[in-house]
Amino acid sequence: MSRRRPDLALCPIARATRLVGDAWTPLLLRNVCFGQRRFDELQRALGVPRASLTRRLARLVEDGLLERRLYQDRPPRHEYHLTEKGRAFFDVLAAMWRFGEDWLFEERAPVTLADRRSGRPVRPIVVDEATRAPLELGELRVRRARADA
Amino acid sequence: MSRRRPDLALCPIARATRLVGDAWTPLLLRNVCFGQRRFDELQRALGVPRASLTRRLARLVEDGLLERRLYQDRPPRHEYHLTEKGRAFFDVLAAMWRFGEDWLFEERAPVTLADRRSGRPVRPIVVDEATRAPLELGELRVRRARADA
Repeated sequence: MSRRRPDLALCPIARATRLVGDAWTPLLLRNVCFGQRRFDELQRALGVPRASLTRRLARLVEDGLLERRLYQDRPPRHEYHLTEKGRAFFDVLAAMWRFGEDWLFEERAPVTLADRRSGRPVRPIVVDEATRAPLELGELRVRRARADA
Repeated sequence: MSRRRPDLALCPIARATRLVGDAWTPLLLRNVCFGQRRFDELQRALGVPRASLTRRLARLVEDGLLERRLYQDRPPRHEYHLTEKGRAFFDVLAAMWRFGEDWLFEERAPVTLADRRSGRPVRPIVVDEATRAPLELGELRVRRARADA
């Protein structure tokens, strides 16, 4: 974002947007989430120019979503692993997955998330943590957090 | 995205990324979700150049997330309302909200989502629709959808 306005800086969505305000970053995180950890395989899978990939990986390391781990000494080679923060970001990707599945294919989406062991399809849904009921936009408002809450 | 690779086109995240692969689009949708519907108020709130806002609104109308409704005849003036698809996208924003709340503030986030009537804080969480259990990345895989499923 070229301009930061005070109210934007307060908003959790605005902050998260900085992480996804680039078409490749969610795809890069998606691929790491599903097990691609090396520069070359990410580069091949995404078809993104090497310089862009280097920049995006460095940004995600700096932002604390990925960490570099040495997996080979000579020559030194690194893998990118999700941090706890990076794993938490998977929920954003899962919500994008569900929206894409429901709304962005003419017919059924050609891929589905499934439980690794049972193969049962898994459909992500966003709910209220306390009630586990789906969110209803009309029933929500934004309020200042209370200092004592 | 400047290049489309076959496997990317199949992925629901990749498709959803086209909608958020721009830092302002989620913020624009956020503001419409929370009741700003007119060009001038969106422009003031977001501080985005008018030409950019025009372009992004047109794109969201074209993509079916917003619809234009005439609210004044002379001169003609339009409001932007969420379609059903646009309301569904709120879940992506809600997942971003939660991630931002949990990970992107040094201390507590200064704003919270709350139930409009009771004022009870609402914390979005992404779960498996069938079990309502939080998603565990390590237990998920991506598979081709079965034609008969």
